[in-house]
Amino acid sequence: MLDLAPPACPVPLPPANRTVFFVSDGTGITAETLGHSVLSQFELRFKQVRLPFVDTLDKAYDATRRINEVAETDGKAPIVFSTLVKADLSAVIRQSKAMHMDLFQTFVEPLEQELGVKSTHTIGRSHNTADSEEYKNRIEAINFSLAHDDGQSNKNLASADVILVGVSRSGKTPTSLYLAMQYGIKAANYPLIPEDFERDKLPSGLVNFKKKIFGLTIAAERLSEVRNERRPGSKYAAIENCRYEINEAEKMMRREGIRWMSSTAKSIEEIAATILQEIKPDTR
Amino acid sequence: MLDLAPPACPVPLPPANRTVFFVSDGTGITAETLGHSVLSQFELRFKQVRLPFVDTLDKAYDATRRINEVAETDGKAPIVFSTLVKADLSAVIRQSKAMHMDLFQTFVEPLEQELGVKSTHTIGRSHNTADSEEYKNRIEAINFSLAHDDGQSNKNLASADVILVGVSRSGKTPTSLYLAMQYGIKAANYPLIPEDFERDKLPSGLVNFKKKIFGLTIAAERLSEVRNERRPGSKYAAIENCRYEINEAEKMMRREGIRWMSSTAKSIEEIAATILQEIKPDTR
Repeated sequence: MLDLAPPACPVPLPPANRTVFFVSDGTGITAETLGHSVLSQFELRFKQVRLPFVDTLDKAYDATRRINEVAETDGKAPIVFSTLVKADLSAVIRQSKAMHMDLFQTFVEPLEQELGVKSTHTIGRSHNTADSEEYKNRIEAINFSLAHDDGQSNKNLASADVILVGVSRSGKTPTSLYLAMQYGIKAANYPLIPEDFERDKLPSGLVNFKKKIFGLTIAAERLSEVRNERRPGSKYAAIENCRYEINEAEKMMRREGIRWMSSTAKSIEEIAATILQEIKPDTR
Repeated sequence: MLDLAPPACPVPLPPANRTVFFVSDGTGITAETLGHSVLSQFELRFKQVRLPFVDTLDKAYDATRRINEVAETDGKAPIVFSTLVKADLSAVIRQSKAMHMDLFQTFVEPLEQELGVKSTHTIGRSHNTADSEEYKNRIEAINFSLAHDDGQSNKNLASADVILVGVSRSGKTPTSLYLAMQYGIKAANYPLIPEDFERDKLPSGLVNFKKKIFGLTIAAERLSEVRNERRPGSKYAAIENCRYEINEAEKMMRREGIRWMSSTAKSIEEIAATILQEIKPDTR
């Protein structure tokens, strides 16, 4: 289990006195992902409210009431990101006193025109879409990544899509799990430990799989900080030891021709997307 | 480690002869989430291409070339979902022969008007936004959920946000990890096993935390199927045994006043969003 570097410390944001609602007839994950992405372009802090599973007229009226109450309290129109596939539910929500960002209205209708077919207006399709094969693969990948976390097992490495290596706490575990969960990638991970540096060799289980190994490295200062949180004042966390391990790990990866990147100040999402691009650029 | 039920088996979709591009100056995760959600409303199969980290003019011209090549090969305009915060990069991509769904152009500009402030047009803000506190919490939650997977540890249960319980393979592990990764929720999980049913009591470590326990159940037929994949022909996987365990688990949860839901035919996202709504309805 490893930490990742948080991004560079930002200045606290001023409050916007605005409430943002994520309204959906499903989980609300699409509305929220979209909303966060758009809002991240403004240096303001928003109060956020999730309203998932709004899938009946009654719930839509309830949601509308909540939005209107907040509009009153805030004295400013809330911002509503919505993904409602049913026209009648969407119509109810749009009556509320808010600024509306309606994903389906905006994108689905033009796409119907372009494709020359009607959309299905089916609730809850985002996450189990297309084929259950894809979903099964994700679950299998999560199980695989858990079973192959932190060098636990050499079994079935042949069926791994990628094997992450790096010193302890360089970010391998969360990245492996994210790759599995988001993309259905079977990601094993192996720590590079002082014994490997003394032998000056990759862990023996890995030598046959060099093509799918991907390395993570991290700035020594950041690594020391992260390790100190777990084992304060230990040799393991000391800056000299961190420098030594990172140096040895990078030397080894360079010599073995292993692709690698730094996880310092990168989010799991960024690390995962970069790795994916290296190992498997296109989906299906 | 547990499987989840895949959604009901869908009919294979007809190919659309259309290629979809997800173009982003960052990870592309927002473009992809948005795109999948919109495309899931059409009963067609699309060829999908990810183009993440398009953050220079050169890369934008490359992307445009790729899109135009596909337009030629397919004989039909590709569909481009893009999240490019820089106007010059966006302008290059929009010259390609495609149908464009531009997230920033569509939503950020109206929001600038409504909020009366300019957006920052900063690349790569989606995932480390707002405050690094939030990001740190997510990593901590992932580590917590891993350390408390499958009843591994009774330590620090007081700091869990939720404790999932259910029979083996009812979906607890992937749900816990998803709650941690997506929402920064510290989710422990505990199996309910035949010994618990014989004693007719909740695992003793849990009795003080009843308020944050959430149960998962699953249809016996589905459970038997999932268990048979792992241990074919075992007593563990036999339908009678699955029926017995599920029946006992539901009886126990009912008696203890534990909220629960069925994971059968639900995606991890749906289960997680439902649990979140029960334990922590609003963000911040």
